[in-house]
Amino acid sequence: MSELRLDPTTREWVIIATERAKRPRDLVSRAPHPLPEAHVTDCPFCPGNEDQTTHETASYLDPATGLWRVRVFENKFPAVRPDGSAERTQDHPLALSVKGVGAHEVVVESALHNRMLAEMVDDEIFDVVRAYRDRLRDLYSHEYVRQVIIFKNHGPSAGTSLEHPHSQIVATPIVPRHRRLQYDVAVQHYDERGRNLYLDMVEFEIERGLRVIRETASFVEMHPYASRRPFETWVVPKNPRASFAEVADEELHEFGRALRDALHGLYVGLNNPDFNHILYTAALGDENEPHFCWHLRIYPRLTAVAGFEIGSGVHINTSVPEDTASFMREVVSTS
Amino acid sequence: MSELRLDPTTREWVIIATERAKRPRDLVSRAPHPLPEAHVTDCPFCPGNEDQTTHETASYLDPATGLWRVRVFENKFPAVRPDGSAERTQDHPLALSVKGVGAHEVVVESALHNRMLAEMVDDEIFDVVRAYRDRLRDLYSHEYVRQVIIFKNHGPSAGTSLEHPHSQIVATPIVPRHRRLQYDVAVQHYDERGRNLYLDMVEFEIERGLRVIRETASFVEMHPYASRRPFETWVVPKNPRASFAEVADEELHEFGRALRDALHGLYVGLNNPDFNHILYTAALGDENEPHFCWHLRIYPRLTAVAGFEIGSGVHINTSVPEDTASFMREVVSTS
Repeated sequence: MSELRLDPTTREWVIIATERAKRPRDLVSRAPHPLPEAHVTDCPFCPGNEDQTTHETASYLDPATGLWRVRVFENKFPAVRPDGSAERTQDHPLALSVKGVGAHEVVVESALHNRMLAEMVDDEIFDVVRAYRDRLRDLYSHEYVRQVIIFKNHGPSAGTSLEHPHSQIVATPIVPRHRRLQYDVAVQHYDERGRNLYLDMVEFEIERGLRVIRETASFVEMHPYASRRPFETWVVPKNPRASFAEVADEELHEFGRALRDALHGLYVGLNNPDFNHILYTAALGDENEPHFCWHLRIYPRLTAVAGFEIGSGVHINTSVPEDTASFMREVVSTS
Repeated sequence: MSELRLDPTTREWVIIATERAKRPRDLVSRAPHPLPEAHVTDCPFCPGNEDQTTHETASYLDPATGLWRVRVFENKFPAVRPDGSAERTQDHPLALSVKGVGAHEVVVESALHNRMLAEMVDDEIFDVVRAYRDRLRDLYSHEYVRQVIIFKNHGPSAGTSLEHPHSQIVATPIVPRHRRLQYDVAVQHYDERGRNLYLDMVEFEIERGLRVIRETASFVEMHPYASRRPFETWVVPKNPRASFAEVADEELHEFGRALRDALHGLYVGLNNPDFNHILYTAALGDENEPHFCWHLRIYPRLTAVAGFEIGSGVHINTSVPEDTASFMREVVSTS
């Protein structure tokens, strides 16, 4: 019989549909995308084509070659752009709008067209997460920014058509209601229990052990109790801090390795699945609040989101997190 | 420059990304699925294979032939099932669960394997929406049901692999938080303005005219002001009523026609796109509340939902609802 579990971070139910459950092994991709070449002449993100991209906002050099290893620039077709003010317009009570001010940037993760995060050495992945942090710091200093969403779309079913490894950063002039509700839940937990919700989750998962894949000095990799999708993977710091912008270099190094390891596990175990990852960090003004904790979630795109999910907000997860975590621990121990 | 619009029914922002906007015509599917045969021998939903499906809960006969025209039965791989009670289990403050009690049914919309809702005659589509209403009435009488979600997945990218036209009904032992928040917004509007939010929306859209496709005596077909996706289409009653279960036959006939016409417009205009549709109706106990209004939303699956949407709850819509509505009005007037 299936089971509904309450996600303690959103107070939303998830259906763990054991009767339609797939064994973890059945979700392994049979025909992964073939690995492309290291350099593609007409790829706008490959070295030599820098003039095809718009205003560069950051770059990180390979100390060995002096060439860029990570590059950040404005998206050519931005969802929002750094131009104007976030003033509201309302010409009817049901028509409230704000101009699309903000920033929409692309983080090219490597000069190599076929270099996956999952396979990077420590210094390479450090530059990627460093770019995340540095851009976050800078973007929050802009008057019109209220929230920054850092995410990655890998593969067509995850919403990207561009093969060259890249992440995206969108700074919005509003705090999404979705995120605000998540903070509200954490605030309520903090007020009621006097403790950080995410720290409590981490301690609960470590104590149970069932859904933890890996633990490092400062991070836990786990499939949460109320996972929305098969192999939903969280990388959470053990020492809660609301904003990713506040993470210092040493912890950032460790986070880069933990992220790389989590992605490598999925890459090996599921045969290079399409996925999204998303960094959750506090909204402007909440950076020093004790209730929230930044973290990263990986959502492999193994099953479709259909009408039920769209219409109810409740996900039907056809895998049991305890099973997928156990599968991943085996992958990790043998790879 | 793009624009953020506030969805008045959820208080969530949507980004109308004009800079990445596609013209409506660019979203027309180039290679629609070929229309299948009228009868497929090994299709479990085709006549003759009734013994391959589980417990039948309703059926509607074609008066001309005496054979079934619409059949409802329990899903073979249910997400939830009518067995047990909705008692909560909590063995840790962060692990609250409830057994998957409820119902998960399939509505086969036609005995013909290739009969699309978009092409049905009035009596055929009436039986489909009648099945929706009748099952809703029955399911709400079960002690363990709190909310019923009626939806349809059409095409692989909308989450179905089964070709034979069908909808699904899921009755859950919980009210999804997503829905509860939607009611809360409607209650607040009602308390503040003394009016039904959905009636106000309908009147606003009719007054503006820009996003309305069609109007009948009792229904409006429109692309709402803060559409989440290109060609998001709502069919909304002009006379607000919280529960779809309360709709009488005469209005139901008109709803069937309005739904068929809306789907037909998309079928012709976008070349048989994959889509989901979802019926929104009040939770148990809210059936007679004056603040909510049942309605149906159609979401063509023309663009991917990527990391940004998953992580923020904010959708980037690459079409302007005024433009897509204008395109659809032209489709309607020439088809």
